[in-house]
Amino acid sequence: MPRATVPRSGEQTTDDLLAGVQPAASRRLLRAALDSFSSRGYHATTTRDISVGSGMSPAALYVHYPSKEALLFQLSHIAHESALKVVLDAIASAADPVGGVHAVALEFTAWHARHQTLARVAQYELAGLSPEHYEIVAALRRQLEQAVRAEIQRGAKAGMFTVPDVRAATLALLSMGIDVARWFNPDGRVRPQSLATGYAALALRMLGAK
Amino acid sequence: MPRATVPRSGEQTTDDLLAGVQPAASRRLLRAALDSFSSRGYHATTTRDISVGSGMSPAALYVHYPSKEALLFQLSHIAHESALKVVLDAIASAADPVGGVHAVALEFTAWHARHQTLARVAQYELAGLSPEHYEIVAALRRQLEQAVRAEIQRGAKAGMFTVPDVRAATLALLSMGIDVARWFNPDGRVRPQSLATGYAALALRMLGAK
Repeated sequence: MPRATVPRSGEQTTDDLLAGVQPAASRRLLRAALDSFSSRGYHATTTRDISVGSGMSPAALYVHYPSKEALLFQLSHIAHESALKVVLDAIASAADPVGGVHAVALEFTAWHARHQTLARVAQYELAGLSPEHYEIVAALRRQLEQAVRAEIQRGAKAGMFTVPDVRAATLALLSMGIDVARWFNPDGRVRPQSLATGYAALALRMLGAK
Repeated sequence: MPRATVPRSGEQTTDDLLAGVQPAASRRLLRAALDSFSSRGYHATTTRDISVGSGMSPAALYVHYPSKEALLFQLSHIAHESALKVVLDAIASAADPVGGVHAVALEFTAWHARHQTLARVAQYELAGLSPEHYEIVAALRRQLEQAVRAEIQRGAKAGMFTVPDVRAATLALLSMGIDVARWFNPDGRVRPQSLATGYAALALRMLGAK
């Protein structure tokens, strides 16, 4: 079914992130893999669990994916590309580093609340990736971290932030966002956007923003 | 071998935390369970993996633990009790909330760097606990969060902190520490104590400490 409108990145669900995966059978397998990796862990999930979860036969999985690891890689790749895009868009949307860091903290936190399950698999199951696939994902992770670090550095140089250790501040800021995926309760009272707004203010204060 | 001196909590290794587990065979099993849960995940670990890892026979495990879950519970309980003690000691050691929050952020961060493997299992494998055991661990988690929240609240009331949302600030501060267990590299250049010192300064700034 054609999509009438593309949701803004801040409003996308995880199903929206997976919507580009074709054919639909691959997408169903990917969704089943995500559920199983997230509830039982990557190592404890069998390809049978995934095919059953997707309503397909065990043999059908291999038509679409050569291995369980291929499913983990695609999930991890989609997650990391999406998080990187959110960060780069946030920086590009801002007039200066104060606005940039604010937008990064806001969007990165909201992303981890909205895509909690995908984020947990992407963050906690890195060790399941093959060395080649790990390298591809690690490159995206480095790119994200460097973009945030450069934005903080830019603000510090312009006298907008007071940051004794830019690397530590970058890690702390990213940790605040990533760790949301561990504890966030999607059925709770707090909405992703309101949590993210509070965290963005805390992040700016942490950097001693003027 | 009797221990000549008890290390300060900030200098304890995970083996120190497990040292009170008796008899030595139980401790060996616990250590093997920790390694296996951490590298393969709780669900993918078999009791056979654990007994082999401890150098004992599969049957010997059941002399000491009724189930794999019992090992996870003991590890999780030791971890949560230790982290709670570190936080309560930090608060008790300080003259005022600024000192208290500084000490909490410092010791909590250092704890997650030093006990990275134990912390990851304790944080990421909660879903493996039985409902009864989960409740015991959840009570320790609530106690820890409430202690930190009360200390921030105390500082805010005394005009030492400016915190629009005490709950969000508490979660952000704890996330900075907990997430260290995910990314910290024990073989890297940065030492737990120096990381923790930087994070404690960031935490105070995040709270708008005077």
